[in-house]
Order: sequence, then C-alpha cells, then structure tokens
Amino acid sequence: MFGDSGLLSPGWADTDVDTLLDDRAWLTAMISVEAALARAQADIGMVPPEVAEAIAAVDPDRFDWAGLVAGVRATGNPTVGFVGQLTALVASDDPRAAEYVHRGSTSQDILDTATMLICRTVLDRVRDDLLRVASALAGLAETHRDTLMAGRTLTQHAVPMTFGLKAAGWLNAVLDCLDRLRGHVLPVSLGGAAGTLAAYQEFTDDALDLVAPFAAGLGLAAPPLPWHGFRAPIAETGGLLALVTGTLGKLASDVEVLSRTEIGELTEPSAPGRGGSSAMPQKRNPVYTAAILTAARQVPALVSVLHQSMVVPDERSAGGWHAEWQPLRECLRLAAGAARNAADLTEGLTVRPDRMLANLNLTGGAIVSERLTAVLTPLLGKAEAKKILTEATRTTADQPARLPEVLADLLSDDVERWRALCDPAGYLGASRALTDRALARYRSAGQHRGD
Amino acid sequence: MFGDSGLLSPGWADTDVDTLLDDRAWLTAMISVEAALARAQADIGMVPPEVAEAIAAVDPDRFDWAGLVAGVRATGNPTVGFVGQLTALVASDDPRAAEYVHRGSTSQDILDTATMLICRTVLDRVRDDLLRVASALAGLAETHRDTLMAGRTLTQHAVPMTFGLKAAGWLNAVLDCLDRLRGHVLPVSLGGAAGTLAAYQEFTDDALDLVAPFAAGLGLAAPPLPWHGFRAPIAETGGLLALVTGTLGKLASDVEVLSRTEIGELTEPSAPGRGGSSAMPQKRNPVYTAAILTAARQVPALVSVLHQSMVVPDERSAGGWHAEWQPLRECLRLAAGAARNAADLTEGLTVRPDRMLANLNLTGGAIVSERLTAVLTPLLGKAEAKKILTEATRTTADQPARLPEVLADLLSDDVERWRALCDPAGYLGASRALTDRALARYRSAGQHRGD
Amino acid sequence: MFGDSGLLSPGWADTDVDTLLDDRAWLTAMISVEAALARAQADIGMVPPEVAEAIAAVDPDRFDWAGLVAGVRATGNPTVGFVGQLTALVASDDPRAAEYVHRGSTSQDILDTATMLICRTVLDRVRDDLLRVASALAGLAETHRDTLMAGRTLTQHAVPMTFGLKAAGWLNAVLDCLDRLRGHVLPVSLGGAAGTLAAYQEFTDDALDLVAPFAAGLGLAAPPLPWHGFRAPIAETGGLLALVTGTLGKLASDVEVLSRTEIGELTEPSAPGRGGSSAMPQKRNPVYTAAILTAARQVPALVSVLHQSMVVPDERSAGGWHAEWQPLRECLRLAAGAARNAADLTEGLTVRPDRMLANLNLTGGAIVSERLTAVLTPLLGKAEAKKILTEATRTTADQPARLPEVLADLLSDDVERWRALCDPAGYLGASRALTDRALARYRSAGQHRGD
Amino acid sequence: MFGDSGLLSPGWADTDVDTLLDDRAWLTAMISVEAALARAQADIGMVPPEVAEAIAAVDPDRFDWAGLVAGVRATGNPTVGFVGQLTALVASDDPRAAEYVHRGSTSQDILDTATMLICRTVLDRVRDDLLRVASALAGLAETHRDTLMAGRTLTQHAVPMTFGLKAAGWLNAVLDCLDRLRGHVLPVSLGGAAGTLAAYQEFTDDALDLVAPFAAGLGLAAPPLPWHGFRAPIAETGGLLALVTGTLGKLASDVEVLSRTEIGELTEPSAPGRGGSSAMPQKRNPVYTAAILTAARQVPALVSVLHQSMVVPDERSAGGWHAEWQPLRECLRLAAGAARNAADLTEGLTVRPDRMLANLNLTGGAIVSERLTAVLTPLLGKAEAKKILTEATRTTADQPARLPEVLADLLSDDVERWRALCDPAGYLGASRALTDRALARYRSAGQHRGD
Repeated sequence: MFGDSGLLSPGWADTDVDTLLDDRAWLTAMISVEAALARAQADIGMVPPEVAEAIAAVDPDRFDWAGLVAGVRATGNPTVGFVGQLTALVASDDPRAAEYVHRGSTSQDILDTATMLICRTVLDRVRDDLLRVASALAGLAETHRDTLMAGRTLTQHAVPMTFGLKAAGWLNAVLDCLDRLRGHVLPVSLGGAAGTLAAYQEFTDDALDLVAPFAAGLGLAAPPLPWHGFRAPIAETGGLLALVTGTLGKLASDVEVLSRTEIGELTEPSAPGRGGSSAMPQKRNPVYTAAILTAARQVPALVSVLHQSMVVPDERSAGGWHAEWQPLRECLRLAAGAARNAADLTEGLTVRPDRMLANLNLTGGAIVSERLTAVLTPLLGKAEAKKILTEATRTTADQPARLPEVLADLLSDDVERWRALCDPAGYLGASRALTDRALARYRSAGQHRGD
Repeated sequence: MFGDSGLLSPGWADTDVDTLLDDRAWLTAMISVEAALARAQADIGMVPPEVAEAIAAVDPDRFDWAGLVAGVRATGNPTVGFVGQLTALVASDDPRAAEYVHRGSTSQDILDTATMLICRTVLDRVRDDLLRVASALAGLAETHRDTLMAGRTLTQHAVPMTFGLKAAGWLNAVLDCLDRLRGHVLPVSLGGAAGTLAAYQEFTDDALDLVAPFAAGLGLAAPPLPWHGFRAPIAETGGLLALVTGTLGKLASDVEVLSRTEIGELTEPSAPGRGGSSAMPQKRNPVYTAAILTAARQVPALVSVLHQSMVVPDERSAGGWHAEWQPLRECLRLAAGAARNAADLTEGLTVRPDRMLANLNLTGGAIVSERLTAVLTPLLGKAEAKKILTEATRTTADQPARLPEVLADLLSDDVERWRALCDPAGYLGASRALTDRALARYRSAGQHRGD
Repeated sequence: MFGDSGLLSPGWADTDVDTLLDDRAWLTAMISVEAALARAQADIGMVPPEVAEAIAAVDPDRFDWAGLVAGVRATGNPTVGFVGQLTALVASDDPRAAEYVHRGSTSQDILDTATMLICRTVLDRVRDDLLRVASALAGLAETHRDTLMAGRTLTQHAVPMTFGLKAAGWLNAVLDCLDRLRGHVLPVSLGGAAGTLAAYQEFTDDALDLVAPFAAGLGLAAPPLPWHGFRAPIAETGGLLALVTGTLGKLASDVEVLSRTEIGELTEPSAPGRGGSSAMPQKRNPVYTAAILTAARQVPALVSVLHQSMVVPDERSAGGWHAEWQPLRECLRLAAGAARNAADLTEGLTVRPDRMLANLNLTGGAIVSERLTAVLTPLLGKAEAKKILTEATRTTADQPARLPEVLADLLSDDVERWRALCDPAGYLGASRALTDRALARYRSAGQHRGD
Repeated sequence: MFGDSGLLSPGWADTDVDTLLDDRAWLTAMISVEAALARAQADIGMVPPEVAEAIAAVDPDRFDWAGLVAGVRATGNPTVGFVGQLTALVASDDPRAAEYVHRGSTSQDILDTATMLICRTVLDRVRDDLLRVASALAGLAETHRDTLMAGRTLTQHAVPMTFGLKAAGWLNAVLDCLDRLRGHVLPVSLGGAAGTLAAYQEFTDDALDLVAPFAAGLGLAAPPLPWHGFRAPIAETGGLLALVTGTLGKLASDVEVLSRTEIGELTEPSAPGRGGSSAMPQKRNPVYTAAILTAARQVPALVSVLHQSMVVPDERSAGGWHAEWQPLRECLRLAAGAARNAADLTEGLTVRPDRMLANLNLTGGAIVSERLTAVLTPLLGKAEAKKILTEATRTTADQPARLPEVLADLLSDDVERWRALCDPAGYLGASRALTDRALARYRSAGQHRGD
C-alpha cells in the first residue's frame, strides 16, 4: 500500500480510487512521463530511440522507497531522487540509455506532467460515473414526472412540485458538470529549469518542437507557454472538482433531508450490512449520502489552497508549488469517490410517492396559499385577501383538509371551485415542462451514449 | 454612502469600485430587474405595458433605508421589504400599476437576477482593465525581448532568462483570464416560489416563455432550468474571479520580489504621496503590489464559501443562499480593484535593465552551471563533471567572473571557449521564441482592440 | 453611513452592529489611540499634557473622507492620511499641540491598536449576548428536564433522550465560549517603524516604559514584544470568533432540523412580519436560524485568511497585514450578529413537547432496539437476538405500538415486561444527570450574574 | 505501509511522522481505547477484569484490512467493522471476553477518543520540537544581540535593527505556542449512541462514573458532557495547529527572504544532497524553509473545514463528523513535520553578519531618515526638514556614504555630529532590551528544561 487505505476517508473508501491516486500511481506516472519525453526527443534525434523503451520497462516496484522519501525532504520534491534511481535502474538494464534519461529536463516538468496525466485518468473516471448518475436521474425524472411532492424553502413547505422536477434539477446540474469536464484542458509541462527550455535547447535547434509530440504521446494538451510559475491548470482543475462535488453535494443534501425518519420520502439502496449501526439494529443510515456530503464539505477548502498557490513569486516558488500536490490529490480522491457513490446511490434510490403525498397533505391547502392569494387579491384587495386567508388557515390548522369548505363559506362561494383551487395537483406550474426540458437536454447531448 | 468606504480595504480603495457594488447598487439593480420582468410580462399580456416604466421611474433614493434593513432581519432577505416599498412608491405615482409589481415573482428571482446584473457590469470593467494590463505587458515584452535577467527558483538564481519572457508569461496568463471572461455565462433567475414558475403560470399559458425575453432585456443569459437551489452560476463566477486575482497576484508577487531594496530591478510607478511612509521619507513602498496581493490573499477563501454554498438542501436553503451575497460582493470588489491597480501598475512600471544585469552577474558563471554540466558530462562522466564544477565554483566564489579561466585551466582548454559557455546571454534557450509566441497570441486575438 | 447597511448581510443586519464596526468606528478608535498614546507620552514627559486632550477633542466628522480613502490607495493603509488630517485638525485648534501628534509612532501601531480596541468592545457585546443565550438555555434545560424526544444520528431516530439534555448540550458549549472569551487577551501594538521603538526612544530613556500605561489607558493588555510581524493576536481572535459562530451554528442547525414542517418540534419566536414570505402567507420561515447559519458558514473561511496572514516576511509585510482588516471586521460583525440573533431566538423559542412525543412514537419500540438487543443478547446470543428483533420490527412496521406484544409472543414472555422495556421513557440513560451537570456548571460559574 | 509515504508531502516527508498518523496508528489507538474502556468498566464491575487485557493483546496486524475498508463504505465509519473484527479476534483467544467487547459503546466514542489519543502523542512531539526551536532561537538571539541588520517593511529597508531582535521575535512567538500547547485540553468521548450513555447505564448505576477513570487510563481529560455533536475539541485543536504552523511559517517566510541570492544573510544548514537540484549543481535551495511554508499554506484551509464541521445538526451528523478525520490528520502531520523541520533549520542556520552589514549600508544613512526627520523637524519645521532630506538623499543616491557630509554642508553644521546621527548602530531603539526580554521569558519559564 502506498497511500491511505481510506480508513479515515469515507468520502472515497472502497470506491477503487486508492490505487489510482496513491504514491505508487505518481511514481508510475512519472516513469510514463520520462518515457514519453524520451520518445519525443528520439523523434527529433535528441536521444537514441531505445531510451524510451528502456525507461518504460522499469518496474515501479524496483525503486527504493525509503530513498525516494528521504529525497523529498532533502530536495523538496520527489523528482530529484526519482531521477537518480530511475537512471540507475535503466543503467542496470541498458547502461548506454541511462546517459539520456531526463535529458535537459527539470523536476517540475516531470512532476507537473505526471500530475496532469493522473488528472486525465481520474477525470475520465469521474465522467463515466457522472454518466451513470445522469442516466439514473433521467430515469427517475421520467418515472416520477407526475409524482407530487412538497416544494420546500427555508425548511418549510412552500408550493407543490413533482419529484420528476426534483430529479430533473439534479440531472441538469450534472449535465453542466459533464459539459465542463468535456471542455477541460490538461496541458503537459515543459520548461526546463526556469521555463526557458534552455537545457533542452542545448540538444536541438528548437526545443519548442518537443512540446506538441510530448503532449500527443501522453494524450494531454500542448500549452502556449511553460506554466511552472502559472498555476491556472491546477487551480482550474480544482475549481472543476469543486463544481462536481458541489453538484453531487446538493443532491446528497436533498436526499439527506428527504430520508429523515419523519419525512421518509427517499431511502438509500440497501444491502446486507449497508447503513448498519453496531448498536442500533433498526437503523438504516444514509451512508452514501454521508459519504458524498463529507467529500463536498472538504473540497472547497482544499481548492482554496490551490487558488492561493497561484500567488507565488519567481520561476518556481518555495512552498507554493509544494502546497498543491496533496490538496489536489485529495480533491481528486474525493470527487472520484463522490461520483462513484452518487452513481450507486441514484441507481438504487427508493422513492416513496406515498410518503411524498402524505407529507404534501400535512399542511392541507396552505401549500397553495400563494395561489389563493393570487386569486383573492384582485377580488378583495391585498389586505382583505390576506386577512381572510390567515383566518381560514388558522381555523383549519388541525383539519387542513377542511380549508376549501371554510373558504367557500367565508366567501359564500361554491365549495367545488375552492376544492379545485386548493388541490396541489392543480398548482404545479411548469414542473412537467421543465422536467421534459432537462430530459431533452440529456437526450440531445447523447449523454446516455457517453459521447 | 451605502457601503464600506474602502478605509480598511486597500485591495479596492479609491478604484471607483465602491458605488458599483454598494448596497444602493443592489437596490438599483433590483429596480431594474423588476422593471425588466414587468416588460417581459407586458410583452405576453400578463401586465399592462406602462407598469415597467412606472417601476423603472422609481428613484432608489426614495426608499426608507432603515425599513429595508429591518426587513432583512425580519424576513432573511432584502427582497420582501424592497417589494413592499417599491409597490408603495409605484402606487404613489400610478396606483393601477402598483397592482402588477412583482407579479408571480419571488424574492430569489429578483435578488439572484440583480446579482447577475451587477456581475455583468463588474466583469465588463474587469475585462477592460485586463485589456489595459495586457497592452502594457505586451509593450514590456516587446521592449525587453533581449533584456537579460536571472531566472529564479526557490529564491535562488537558477538560469538566465529575459525580462521579455517574464512579461510574456504574465501576458499569457492574462490572456487566459480574458478568454475565460469571454466565455462566462451569467443567467437570469426565474423560478417563482420553488422553481416551478407556478405563480407566473397563473397569468399565462406558458410561463417558460417569459425567460428568454426577460434575459434579453437585461443582457443576461436564459438558463435551461431555474437555479434557485443550484448555485453553479455563483460558484463559477467566484472561480473566475479567483483566477483573475490569482493571475494578477502572481504578477504582483514577482514585482514584490523584484522591487526589494537589494534587488531593485523593478520600481512601481511613483507620484507625489504614492508609496510614502509617514515616518520614513526615504521609503517608496510597492503599494499597488501590496493592494493586488491583499486582494489575491482574500479571494480564494471567499470563493470557498461560494463553493460550499452549493451544498444546500431544498428548493431554497436556510442560510446557504444567504451566505453567498457578501462573499461574492467582496470577491467582485477585490477582483475589480486588483484589475484596476494592475493596469496602473503595469502601465507605469519602471524597469531597470542595469540592475537585472548586475544581479545576474552576482553569481558569475554559476548561473549557467546547468549548461556547463551538460557540456562536461559527455566528456568526463557525471561524477567527474560535478566534481570539477564544484571545485571551480568554490574557488571563484568571491570572484565569480574568473570562472571561465579557472575552468579552462582545470581542463587545459581554450579560455575563450569557456568565456562563451559561461556567458548568460548565450544560454537563454527559447526565451525569445516564447516571448514572440505570447505576443502573437496577444495580437491574433485582437485583444489590443478589445474585441 | 460609513459601511454596508446590512442589505446583503442577514447575518448581522439590524442587530445594531453596523455602527460598532463601520469605517467611522475605526476612525474614532484611531483618534482614541492617538490620544491614549499622547497621554502615556505626557506621563513620562515626551509631550506636553494638553496634547492628548487636543487630539481627543477632534470630531471624527471633521475629516475629509475622500481624502482618507485616496490616502489608502496611495499609501496602502488608512493611517498615513489619517495622521496628516488629524495633525491639521489639531493644529487648527491648538497649533503647538499639533507638533506632538503621532510622536515617534508608525501606521501599524495606531491601526493595530485601534483594531484591538474595537475587538474589545465587540467581544464584550458578544459576551453579554452569550450570557443571555446561556440564561435562556438554562431555563429551557430546567423546564424540559423530563421532556422526551428522539435522539437522532445520521438523520435517523437513534435512541430516546430529553429536550432538557439537548438544551444542556447547547448550554455547555456556550459556557465554553464564555470561558474562552474571559481568557482572551487583546494587546496594544507599540513598536515604531520596525518594531524597535527607535523613534519613541529618541524622546525618552526607555521607550518600553510607554507600553504598560498606553495599554492601561485603553483597557488593553501590554504585550511582551511588538507584534507587527507576529499576527497571533489577530488570528487567535479570529479563532475565538469561529468558536462562537460554530457553537451557535450548531444550535441553529438543530433548530433548523427541528422546525421542519414534518418535524415541528421547535418554532422560532414570531412577531408581525417576522419570517414572512411575500408570496406565501402560510410560511413561518426560521429566519433567526438562517441568519445564524449564514454567519457560521462564512466565518471559518474568513478565519483561514487570518491564519494565512500569519505567514508573512519582514517587519511588516506587503499585502499580508492588509488582508486581515476586512476579514476580521466581517468575522466580528457576523459573530456579534449571531450572538444577538441567538439571544433573541433562544429567549423566544417555542417548544412543542407534544410533537416531540409524537415523533418519538413514530418508530414505536424500534427506538429502543439498542436496549432490546442488550437484553436479548445474553439470553439468545447475538445472532439469534438480532434475528428476532429484525423479524419483530418488520412485522410491526405499520403498527409500531404492537412491538411489545409481538416480542412477548415470540419469546413466550410477559407482555408487561416488554412494554416496560420498549418504553422510551425508561431508556434515557444519564439524560437527566447530564442536564443537571450543565445547569450546575452554569450556576457555579455565576454566569447568570455576568461575572 | 498504511498511509501516504510522503512522496507528495514535502511538508512532513521523512520526519518520522508517517507511522504516528497512518491508518494503522488509528487502528492501534482504537484498540487501546477499547481496552481502556473495558478497564474502566471492570473497575465498576461492568465487565470481567480480564477483558481489557484480552483486547489489549490483539495485534493490529491480525485485522483483515480490506474488510475494514469495505466496512467504512458500508457503514460510514471505521468503527463498526473494527468492532466486528476485534470481537472475533478476542473470541479466538478468549471466547468469554469477546461477549464484553465494546459494551454499551458506540462508534463515535471509540473513534473520537482514539483521535484525541493520537493528538496527545503528536502534540507532545510538537512541543518537544518547539522546545528545540526555542533553544536554538534563544542561542541565536544571545549570540547576535549586537548584530546589525536592516529592518524591512513592505519589502523596503525601513530602520536598523539587530538580528538578535529578529530571533527574539521568533522566540517570543514560539513561547506563545508552547503556552497554548500546555493549556490545551484533549477530552475522551463517552456518550453512547446519542450522548445519553443509555447503553452503558444498562450495566451500572451511574454510567457517568465511567468517564473519569476512562480518561485517566488514557491520559486524557474528562469532559463535562459528551461532545458527539459539539466539535470544539477538534476545532480548537485545529486552531492550535494553525497557530503553530503560522508561527513557524512566519519564521520560514523571513528565512526565505533573507536567503535570497541577492540578500544572502541567512543560509539553511547544508548537508550532502540537501537543497540540491538535479540540473543546477550550484544551487542550495532553502528546502527546510519550503517544507515549513508548504505546511503553513495548507493548514489554515484545513482548519476551516474543522471550524465548519462544528455546524451540524442532530446528536451525530451525516457528513460533518466524517469530514473532520482526514483534515485533522493532515493538520497534525503538517504541524509535526513543520516543527521537526523548524528544529533542524534553526539549529543549523548559518548567519552572515557581514552580509547583514553590507545590505544595511546599501542605502547609506537613508535607513535612519526617520531619525534625521525627527532631529530636523523641531529645528526647521516639518516641510523644510523633509525638503532638505529629500534633496540630500537624492544627491547621494549613488554614494550613500556621503550623506553626513552633504547634510552637514547643507545645514552648515559639524560633520561628525551628522556621522553619528547617520550611524545605523546609533538608532537601534529598544532592540537589545526587547531581545533581553524575550530571553528572560524563555529562561524564567524553564522552557529550556522542557517543564
């Protein structure tokens, strides 16, 4: 194991994220980066063609790990020690190739590019899991297009809505995330000691020619200029991850409320042992929800470290660059864990339309008081309308179903008319049209096919 | 005055940002939003055509401010009290119109849209100031394409570079910000009490028809779904502002270092009273720099509040929505102040090529030791090369200019060859090509014309 | 008005905090600090005795505000411009005294000390409001010592508890805050240009003699060394404020849940207009709760700026010091607002024991399943006990009250015994003892007398 | 390995902090906590005396790690799975004892207490390293009591000071940290499922009697009430750690500036391989400094998560509690790493009085312009004094040493008098007295003996 096991990280524990983002994953990515660099250099004759393969052939488990870690303290970054060991390992296989390892390069080129490579893998996985979430939510929106529930604001029942619209709102937000993921650019880093590529230039006419092939070899983008001192690629990746966990956190926050014992409109997927409590056998804890929320609570602060790390002097800073690695990794772990948990949560979510209806009816017609106000105001004026409604709702506080009768009585009007006006099902506004709109967006973007 | 004067905010004090973002600016924007809503409603016959003008004619200074503020505490947001007073003010001018004020609407529609409107104005101003920065930096990059300076990493001289490349790096990062600003979407908010548009729907066949004209009337975008509970528009605006202050903070961080007494390569523009100290007449403090840095130090944490505020339950949350307003405003103030200060700073920056050269020569040829290593290694092997260089640099520690002679001596080689190899001007790598690349990007994008 | 009115700050709007913390309050405090400095200097003969009074007599409204603000941008802080104007204003009253204004002093001495002075006032107010909160909570704990309610974990009913214990937990946490407030030290700042007191020393034998009288004159502490570059007094004040808003935020977070429509165990104090919604007359929004939560959501991030601002170089930093002022002010506003709102909330909180009992009974005996497990395990072994309980709770899911019968039946045991075991009132653990303990702590500390 | 190796964490890599804080350390602590609980329960007859030893004898390496991690995802915390496995492991050794494992307990009691236990160990280590720092700084302050250097504000030379005072300022701040560490309270957690201790109470007359012995057995404090929902112990520990890293970060920030190539007043301790760069053999990077700074840049944001996690509903929250574990661990790692690195840094710091003096003389007498102003003002008035000084400093910009002559000339005064006035050594204010004060504080507190 080369990283926390997840024991203290319910945000990503057991979601297969650990080996993607542990220390060994970075080492492996650094080997890939050195190999890709050698390959790009070989293409323009800077190094012999066999160097790249010699590098790529090095097994990460051959490294002396304690030596690597000691190197981090001695030099401030993992690359110096890594390059030393890599060179020795290549030398033991192919002494001539060893001379060309890391040619013209610098610690930051290797580490930043390795980080981008890992981001690529993780963001692709996040995308796949968000596609699962979107598919599940589209299914819920469709199925529950007509399922009535209470819309709630500031914890109180406000006006009726549908669970279809609830799911459509979540879906639309997830589609936004997928759009941002699709447009997100991850560049290689290639600048040499201070961003001038001078050491590369010693071996070739135009070191800039290296950038595009290096990037292409890794499936990353070629940046216009080296970005050693310009950390937007890291900060913007952090911002994207905060968007993902924020979006999933909103969904989880809704599920948290709706699965409260007293509300009971949603239940997490259950399985033997899931959500269990050692002491209280009756409990079914919303553990996916808690896992997503815990991720969403941590990422914003971690991203603030990344934003702050943009503000650094010199061609490479002392401490600023170094402060990015762990927070970025943690953001990636948490976002990937949240996406996986959200996929499992939404695919197995139990919806209870009966509980939704029962809760909706708790407040009787009061939940359409907005409508009643709108109907009465032109007839009676604002003040009188409010007075009558206040009186009627007070009178029926304990028997909310009687509101139509009381109103009809107070207004000497037809009770059936007031029954209709008080019916939550008649006051859904554009709930269905909005649901359809989100579904159309989902379908038109071909999201369901993962395009 | 309806906002902090800037006395405690050197990040934006006296940069004409106060009235753009004070409480009165929000009130004014809220009036504009109510007017635009009435106009869009008039277009589909929901309200009489004259309502919009009656609303737009209300002078913000007619409001009872203490009443508004009391309303914030009583209702949790500024809109309830605002609508009450607005209705009364319209009524005093045009009693019939007053009946139609805020028709079908809800607090959040008005406040969120007003906030987006203010963002529009401020982001446009930020863009204009960044265009000034870009223009100034392009000028510096061009002028100093060949000005030698030391590249620095972890506070130490690393390899030579040019000040042109330094400026080009800043420029490229500012162009990234301008790209992001151009692509940034600011949507109106229109959802009614709980995002169903139900109360709007009472007065029209399809309330969704309102959204596009409402947005068009305000120069904002029409969102696919209401976003009351989905706060990405706020969080992503925050992320964009953090990118701006982070980018300018990096520039300021470099200026901070380069204007230290001992380094003296850059000096802030001076003017009578600027940078002065009450007690120390000799001082010329880097005050633009400090102002930009102070902004860059605050925005990331404020943005973390915005990211965190995405994680909220229900159709409108209790406390989460409310936590966005002040941090977003402060981010806007700080980013707008930073952009203005950066424009004034870069347009007036004094560059001292003589100091750059003198500092570069402080370490003699040691600053090209990377190159010397590359030259010696194939001849002597890594270990021997390192040994010779270490010896030579130690020997010449106090007379760094003698390095070429000592090396030629140790290697029994031609001293002129080693003079050339030790010349920092000969080890600039792609500095000039990268500078040209940033300038080409600047020109091609027509950034200089503000397109 | 010299500060935000609160329109966008429901966290403190209309809680009388604005004038305590607006720009004019700082100006006033700076005058007091200059006067106190002159007084301390007069005591050791550094300045004539009348200087202090001449300074203290200056009316803050005589300052040219635009000039002050322009000075902030020109010099990076408000003090340089302030001292210039103060000197001129003193000169217009007493030309001789003007020569002695700000003698030997520096911007940071004045501004830091003024900030501490304002902290003193605000923290005292926070303490007074927390004493109100503590008194209200002690009342609730006493009154509801025996009021049954469901204890909830991860949103689900867990085991029974009392509302008295709930209130006691809040109370105990508030008492912790009061303890911390009592022990919190606010030092004057006196260091001169770079913390050596050199300019003061020009006029006296031992400038250090100034510190204690200066501090005493302002009711602040005398620090062992100047703290211009050592920002713990600011950061620790921030930490204290985060403790306060975190503690009150926990309370508000509980009230938020317990006042949900479906739960209805607590209701905020109501008053005409409070908690109202423009569109939905039936709503009673938990607005104190939202106000406290919005404060609690912002302070932690603001405090992170203060913690970060400790990490600055030199005797005074460029940008770090400046980044503290606004976040600290905002923390003070939010904490003071939260304390006031919490006092009003807790003093007027409506408790509904009937709803608490009804909710508790929702899950029937399942809420004591922990106890049933403990009783059955020694008899049947863990596995069998769990099996029986699972079966019994499933059987009675729709009639939870029948659980005792079903269990008695399954176990061929006396139903009365199982009725007693299933009675939530019989499974309160140390609820009452813990309540008493918190009340004893409250009383013994004489908190109720404000000592 | 059960945690990150440090490859991406230069803030603590290779400082022996990894095994103190990895996942296995938590497991081990959890075993200790269960054993201590059983011991306390045995004392009052709740469990047989041999249970504690049976638990304590379980080797952490016997656990099925994958099962533990799967349990985290299934139940949201590590305790449920841990208790299951622990019980089985005890059972395999002593079946009877197994019945009593975790009696009456709950996940949070075990995990929170284990966390406090780890905090205890780590804070003790931090204290020991800070004592080393304090000792080293006291030595520097004493040795350099008279070493002149430039005081710097906003990056510019301000007035002279001594390096002794610089070190004394750092020392005083470290002594503050030590005071706070000494006063910091770490309580056990004992509340049962929802803070009522009900399940403990089933087995004893007064479950509260358990708390003090349980705490004593672990060397922790007994809290007045259970703190499951009241997270101040975690948040305040975070605040303390931020104070430590902020204080050390200030020191590192100064070292960073003073070790810049152009300034060169301080150099980090060197050793073969330390501070090296793969490509640039001449470089001596300030790597301890970078390591401390990287810690100081991360901790404030992580602490904001802890402060935010106080704001949670219910007796145990869904997601809030869970969000604390990893950030707290990371704060502990970073603070412990920073303290160790600071100890090694300060003990080996190379001070260059020659460079301090040379830099001080760079600006000639201008560095005492504050004093010259003070001397001239009573003679000439403020305006004329400023005019003369401005002229004199401009005239001597390139030959700063000539300032006394030029001033004597302009004022027709004795040049020796002006030489004395311009001598930085004569304008040190209370530098020495303040140094002595910090040293006295250090000695009187017996800090050097670690009391």
